Amino acid sequence: MEIHRQMSPLHDEEERHFYGVTPEFVAEVSDHIKAGTLNGLTPQILARHNADIGDLIDQLEPAEQEILVEKLAGSMDPEVLTYLSDATRAFLIPLLGTKVLAGALRALDSDDAVLLISDLEPEQQRQLLRALSSRDRARFEESLTFPEETAGRLMQREIVCVPASWTVKQVITLIKADKHLPSNFYSIFVVDTQHHPIGRVPLSELLRAGHTARMSDLMHDNVHIIPAMRDEEDVAGLFQHYGLTSAPVVDEEGRVIGMITVDDIVEVIEEKAEQDILHMAGVSSSDFGLGCFETFARRAPWLVATMFNGIITALVIQQFEPSLSALTALSFFMPLPAMMGGNVGLQVMTVIIRAMAARDLREQNTAKALRKEVSVGFLNGLLFSTLLGVFAYWFTGGNWQIGLVLFGALLWNIVWAAIAGCLLPVMMQRAQLDPTVGAGPILTVITDILGYAIYLMLASVWLL
Amino acid sequence: MEIHRQMSPLHDEEERHFYGVTPEFVAEVSDHIKAGTLNGLTPQILARHNADIGDLIDQLEPAEQEILVEKLAGSMDPEVLTYLSDATRAFLIPLLGTKVLAGALRALDSDDAVLLISDLEPEQQRQLLRALSSRDRARFEESLTFPEETAGRLMQREIVCVPASWTVKQVITLIKADKHLPSNFYSIFVVDTQHHPIGRVPLSELLRAGHTARMSDLMHDNVHIIPAMRDEEDVAGLFQHYGLTSAPVVDEEGRVIGMITVDDIVEVIEEKAEQDILHMAGVSSSDFGLGCFETFARRAPWLVATMFNGIITALVIQQFEPSLSALTALSFFMPLPAMMGGNVGLQVMTVIIRAMAARDLREQNTAKALRKEVSVGFLNGLLFSTLLGVFAYWFTGGNWQIGLVLFGALLWNIVWAAIAGCLLPVMMQRAQLDPTVGAGPILTVITDILGYAIYLMLASVWLL
Repeated sequence: MEIHRQMSPLHDEEERHFYGVTPEFVAEVSDHIKAGTLNGLTPQILARHNADIGDLIDQLEPAEQEILVEKLAGSMDPEVLTYLSDATRAFLIPLLGTKVLAGALRALDSDDAVLLISDLEPEQQRQLLRALSSRDRARFEESLTFPEETAGRLMQREIVCVPASWTVKQVITLIKADKHLPSNFYSIFVVDTQHHPIGRVPLSELLRAGHTARMSDLMHDNVHIIPAMRDEEDVAGLFQHYGLTSAPVVDEEGRVIGMITVDDIVEVIEEKAEQDILHMAGVSSSDFGLGCFETFARRAPWLVATMFNGIITALVIQQFEPSLSALTALSFFMPLPAMMGGNVGLQVMTVIIRAMAARDLREQNTAKALRKEVSVGFLNGLLFSTLLGVFAYWFTGGNWQIGLVLFGALLWNIVWAAIAGCLLPVMMQRAQLDPTVGAGPILTVITDILGYAIYLMLASVWLL
Repeated sequence: MEIHRQMSPLHDEEERHFYGVTPEFVAEVSDHIKAGTLNGLTPQILARHNADIGDLIDQLEPAEQEILVEKLAGSMDPEVLTYLSDATRAFLIPLLGTKVLAGALRALDSDDAVLLISDLEPEQQRQLLRALSSRDRARFEESLTFPEETAGRLMQREIVCVPASWTVKQVITLIKADKHLPSNFYSIFVVDTQHHPIGRVPLSELLRAGHTARMSDLMHDNVHIIPAMRDEEDVAGLFQHYGLTSAPVVDEEGRVIGMITVDDIVEVIEEKAEQDILHMAGVSSSDFGLGCFETFARRAPWLVATMFNGIITALVIQQFEPSLSALTALSFFMPLPAMMGGNVGLQVMTVIIRAMAARDLREQNTAKALRKEVSVGFLNGLLFSTLLGVFAYWFTGGNWQIGLVLFGALLWNIVWAAIAGCLLPVMMQRAQLDPTVGAGPILTVITDILGYAIYLMLASVWLL
């Protein structure tokens, strides 16, 4: 057991030890693997929490991972495999023999088992499923028919369902006898004769009730039912909205086929947040663990938008070649409207996208949000255009024309960036597009090209 | 009860109804408020889930919120208040009378109660605490002594703790008798005579055990203990790492003082993701609900970095005025290295920051990650520098010098951006700074200024 009793201030050393394994322990295991003296260390490794054994394996080099897992395979709880990072699991699973894997599948909840099966090639999958009893095989085969990122894929088949007429005593007798219970559950679900969910009883309330109480009297009837084809992000929204710990999943006829628990939802939320952040930076998904060439192939397409942005900017600047030849000082401040506009647009767009995700921005307050963003843009525009206009006047030795051009172009582009940053994600969402994926590059192109065009246009109109 | 049985394809209409209230219902309530005929609708409102009543209030105009809450105050479950958005709650709480609020505090779990108290002015807080019994007052006063965003603030005081020698029967008797139980709990915690946590028994296992079994035999001894002063993000990491549903919080002497449950953690994770996304876009926290001037005051400081970036860029360009006068065509492609470098740097930086957050990037693999990013940068640099160099050659009617300058400057700046995007967040983390807050603006300044400087420097060396 790990006890952490120290209060603030927390030091680095303690921070690291709050959870997971220490780098020192990883180094020790690695040394023993290299020296071939792993046997002496295995009891110490197996005494750790399964999540920490997973953490340890994750931190080793691939060759070391293979040696360690081979050594532990017979004695290790298969749950360890569910704690590995996706990349490590995809690497290790195919190396485990069919016998070890089949044992793991039988021991795990079905959602974790499906995770392991998904990492195998189709041929290996078939081989593994053949090694299982028909009952176990049916569990996984049905789950695998649901598309990835749906409730059907996320759920576990293990769930406790009872009729409304049952007494607490009957339910407890069932729980004590049933061998196919979930490893963790928080509610008993009540179903009708067609196996449709009609209520739920949290375990904490079941414990408080008398043995003769009937489920129909105890149950809450606001059970939140999840169709198996629901997107997992919708399910996460449902869990967050109602503060759920578990909810039943139903098939097309509304019959219970499984359950989703909050620990799966925590992962969905974390992954969604990761996706959003990466998308907004022009990365499709984390390529941290990938090789050079694969990473290159994934990142390059996102840079093509920037390349075209640069080419169009070059075309815009070329149109104003006469003005630039006549007054080279114009080029000093040429990038500024694009820079400021890009930044303002990104601020507005991000606030709007987050407000949409949190369902704070809705149809009825979109116009109000736009009005506000234009006003804020105008205030920011006025402040920075004045500051930079005056600076340009001073910097060019008293050229008030350049100062005025910069003032006008900056104000215009900042207000425009605020409008675009607000409307672009709204329009993308209405067109059923994910604004986190495309809005960033499109916005940059808009604010960059307009930034250069407005500046140079004002210059040629006012100066020449 | 809401039942959703339809399978894919899911249509818009159904998407909206998966959780929360419909816009039509909000409009109906709003109409009844305006017409003064709210009485007829209140039973229908109160029949909804507390989370949906909160959602409904959130979507009304402030004046309507006031009227509705005044109407419901007597009959509404105080839990509704915990489902309101922060802005709505901060607006409504001070409007509720001390009597209603005191009743709410007594009915709620202490973590939710503390949330309500925090929204009040110090004078109102004191007045409210005086209206409570000394037992209730003590509960909240101690919680309020912990800083915001610590485990002590997040926890609820209600927790079920029993000695190891107790039997299942004794525990169940306690649960049935105790009036101060948490409204939801998932584990029983086992404590020693000094009230230090030494084990935990999940409710699902308690139910399966015989009445005479002792807690010492049932308990898991890998209980994860949280010091009250721990940052809530560390706590979220602990829950995610071990897949916890609840964990005990201890004081400086290691004595149990409360419990944190996974629903609180879901909120922490969601808030952390929101913060990261907003910070990376140069917004300190969501200002969606704020007024114009307050929003302006919060966003402007983040734009100052861009302003200085623009000023330094102007200085750099000015240094090369002779080259630009001699060859105006140089200015066409001048922004390109900065644009491409900025984009590459942002990709790299975001992947690195996420890898640090997921603890995939550690001290031992930092050098490897840097090597990879430089290689990927080199590949991307080679591809785009060649494409754009050839384009520039063609665009300027066969000026191979400009093509060559652009090729060199682009390659240089892209590789440099990859190095900076990788090292900057690593260095910030080592200096105990949050890389999501400052790394973006710093990186842009670095890649912009170097982009312009390298391009113009190469041009003046090679061309003139």
